[in-house]
Amino acid sequence: MKFTVTVTLKKDVLDPQGKVVLNTLQNLGMDNLKSIRQGKYFEIDMNDIDEEKAKKKVDDMCKKLLANMIIEDYKVNKI
Amino acid sequence: MKFTVTVTLKKDVLDPQGKVVLNTLQNLGMDNLKSIRQGKYFEIDMNDIDEEKAKKKVDDMCKKLLANMIIEDYKVNKI
Repeated sequence: MKFTVTVTLKKDVLDPQGKVVLNTLQNLGMDNLKSIRQGKYFEIDMNDIDEEKAKKKVDDMCKKLLANMIIEDYKVNKI
Repeated sequence: MKFTVTVTLKKDVLDPQGKVVLNTLQNLGMDNLKSIRQGKYFEIDMNDIDEEKAKKKVDDMCKKLLANMIIEDYKVNKI
């Protein structure tokens, strides 16, 4: 059973890394860019068969390690 | 117009960062984990109105800056 997790900074948290990417792209000649925000992405493969149980486990992983809940949000998707 | 881009290592490329996450989660007591691969995630907001044109531009950004086509794949989604 495979899940994807995306971890993004909360809306009001500054994202200097995304800003650098934005500036670099503009220097490369890209126009009409409004904003870029960068996040983390994980593909998690599990041996569990019970989907609900597996999803709960992934949720737990996000809270314990993958995301910093003070400044970040996360989304879990089954693929 | 908003797009998300996920950049992942190609299947045959080693992912030491993902391996560290896997080991750490196992040390935290998570079982039944098969594999974890880590990637990058971008949310790109553009002023363009023409969707096809904007998508082509995002594609261009990936090839020029966001992804290293030798070892990475990327996926673009409109949200």
